Amino acid sequence: MAIVVNLENERSKKGASLDALMALVSDDLALVNTSIVERMHSPVELIPQLAGHIIAAGGKRLRPMLTLASAKLCGHREQRHIHLAACVEFIHTATLLHDDVVDDSSLRRGLASANAVWGNKPSVLVGDFLFSRSFELMVEDGSLQVLAILSHAASVLSEGEVLQLVTANDTSTSEDAYLEVIRAKTAALFAAACQIGAVVSDRPKVEEEALESYGLNLGIAFQLIDDVLDYSAKQEKLGKALGDDFREGKITLPVILAFRRGDDAERQFWRRTLEDLEQAEDGSDLREAQRLMEKHQSLADTVKRARHYGAIARDALGIFPDSPAKSALTDIIDFCIERAF
Amino acid sequence: MAIVVNLENERSKKGASLDALMALVSDDLALVNTSIVERMHSPVELIPQLAGHIIAAGGKRLRPMLTLASAKLCGHREQRHIHLAACVEFIHTATLLHDDVVDDSSLRRGLASANAVWGNKPSVLVGDFLFSRSFELMVEDGSLQVLAILSHAASVLSEGEVLQLVTANDTSTSEDAYLEVIRAKTAALFAAACQIGAVVSDRPKVEEEALESYGLNLGIAFQLIDDVLDYSAKQEKLGKALGDDFREGKITLPVILAFRRGDDAERQFWRRTLEDLEQAEDGSDLREAQRLMEKHQSLADTVKRARHYGAIARDALGIFPDSPAKSALTDIIDFCIERAF
Repeated sequence: MAIVVNLENERSKKGASLDALMALVSDDLALVNTSIVERMHSPVELIPQLAGHIIAAGGKRLRPMLTLASAKLCGHREQRHIHLAACVEFIHTATLLHDDVVDDSSLRRGLASANAVWGNKPSVLVGDFLFSRSFELMVEDGSLQVLAILSHAASVLSEGEVLQLVTANDTSTSEDAYLEVIRAKTAALFAAACQIGAVVSDRPKVEEEALESYGLNLGIAFQLIDDVLDYSAKQEKLGKALGDDFREGKITLPVILAFRRGDDAERQFWRRTLEDLEQAEDGSDLREAQRLMEKHQSLADTVKRARHYGAIARDALGIFPDSPAKSALTDIIDFCIERAF
Repeated sequence: MAIVVNLENERSKKGASLDALMALVSDDLALVNTSIVERMHSPVELIPQLAGHIIAAGGKRLRPMLTLASAKLCGHREQRHIHLAACVEFIHTATLLHDDVVDDSSLRRGLASANAVWGNKPSVLVGDFLFSRSFELMVEDGSLQVLAILSHAASVLSEGEVLQLVTANDTSTSEDAYLEVIRAKTAALFAAACQIGAVVSDRPKVEEEALESYGLNLGIAFQLIDDVLDYSAKQEKLGKALGDDFREGKITLPVILAFRRGDDAERQFWRRTLEDLEQAEDGSDLREAQRLMEKHQSLADTVKRARHYGAIARDALGIFPDSPAKSALTDIIDFCIERAF
C-alpha cells in the first residue's frame, strides 16, 4: 500500500540526496572507516568479526558524517574530527547490537543481524567492547568537554531505550511521551555528534548550541520518518522487513495518531494487535493497520511533524554563513525526510 | 562433599576477615553508597529500581573498597576517591547485569537476578545506563588519566568476557589460556580500582604500578577461589547455587587440572558433561566431578595457585610503609583466599 502525501506547498525539494555531503566528507569518511577498522581490532577474533559484520552492514554512516560536516562548517583544520566521528559510530553500533538483542531482530538492513548469526551473548559483549573502546578513543583525543557530551548522550540514549521498553505496547501513549522517547533514544546522539564538531573547532558557545539544536531536531525528524517507513511501501526497498514495529507492538507516532483519530472499534483493533499482540498470521492485521493509517492520514501527518522539526533544524543553521558544509547539512534534512517517498 | 586442603606451612592466617578494612573505610563507604544511590537516579523509574536491586544484592563492595583503601594508603585527603569508587562499582554492576543475561543466571547472591525479575531486555539496557553514567561521573572528576585507566579496564574486561565465551566448553583449554581470560574479565578491574587510588593522590609512577600489580594479582586469586567455590561445600552457604559453572560447561582451573591429570575414561566424562553438556539430571554427574577433583587434588591445587598470586600481591605492597591501610589491603588477600574454607 502506497502512502499518499500531499507535497504541495512543502518546502523541501523532491529528490534530495546525500551527494553534496558525500563530496564534502568522502575523504574524511574514508579515514573514519580506517580508524574504525583499526580500533575495533582485538586479539579475540570474534570481536572484529562480529563488529565488522554490523559496521559493514551499517549503512550510511549518517552520524559520523554529521560530526565531519559540522567540523567542516566550523572550519576545523586538524584531524580530531576523524577519531571523534569513529567514536560516535562505535557508540551507535554498540546500541544497534544491544537493540537487536532487546528486540529479537533477525534482520538489520537486509542482512542477518549479529545476534541472528552469533547469538545474543556475543552481541551483548561486543557491544560493551565497542562502547568501552569508544571512550578509550575519546580519552586519546583528550577533550573533557567531548567526553562530557558523549558520555551524557550515551546515558540519555540508554534511558530512552528503557523508557521505550516500559511504554511499549501501551496504546494510550501520548504524542509528547513518544517524543520524549525519541528525543532520548535517537536525537540525543545526533545532537552530540553535531555539537562536538563545534567543540573540536573551538567555536563560540552559540555555534555549539546551534549545531546541537540542528542535530537534535534532525534526529527527531529522522526517527519520525523511520517510524513511517515501517508501515510504508518504500520500506521494503530498504531491506528492512515491513511491519517490524507492528509485530513488536511498538507505539510510534503513526499508531498514536491513528488510535486517537479512530473510533471505538478501531481502538479495539489497536489494543488487540499492539497491546495483546494478537495478530493474524496472514498479514491481514498489518494491512488493516495500514488502511487505518491511510484513512486517518497518520503517515502523512507524521511526515508533516517531521517537516516541522526539519524546519527548526534548518533555522538553527541560520547563524552560519553560506558554505558547502552548510548546504550539505541542509541537504541532510531533506534527505532524511524524503526517505519516506 | 568437603574440600580437603592441607593448610600446613601456608602463610595466610585462618579466620582472615574484612574487619580491619571495614574499620578503615566504613565512613567513606557510606559516602560511596550515597553517591551510588544519587547517581543511579533517573526519571525512568525502572532504572533505579533495577539498578538498586542488583546494587543492594551486590555483596561486599570489594572493588570500591579497594579504591578507598588504596587512596588511603597513598594519603589521599580529598573526596575524589568517593566518586571514583562509585564509578568502579557502576562498571562492575553493569558487567554483572550483562553477565547474568549472557549466562542465563536466575540467582545472584541468593536473590533472584535482575534478568529473572525484569527480563533480559531491561538488564541489558540498564547495564548500558550504569556504564554511561560511570563515565559521566569520571568526567566530573576531571582526570583524563583516571578515564584512560578505567575505559581501558572496561574494554579489556569485555574482551575477556568474549574470550571466555569462545573458549567455553573446550576441555582442551590450557591453564595459560584460562589465566588470560580471568586476567581480563576479573583482574583488570581490580587492578584499575587500586591504581586510581594512587592516581588521585598524585603519587609517583612506582606506587601506581605497585597498586596496579597488587590489584591484578589479587583479582586473579579472587577469581581462582570463586572457581573453587563453585564446586565446594562452602559455596552453598554463600547463597550461590553450587555447580553453576559445571552446568554451563565453564572450563575453570579445577576442571583443567582434573582433566589433565585424569585418564581416558575421566576425560571422556569431562567431554560428555562439559563439551556436550550431557549431564544426569539427578546431580550424580556433578558429584562425580567433585569426586574426580578430590581424587586429583584439583581444588586444593587451585587454592595453591591462588596463594601464589596472593603472595605476589602481598609483595607488591612492600614498597609502602606500614600503615592501617596497608594491613587492611593485606588482609583482603587472606580473606579472598580463605573464602574457600
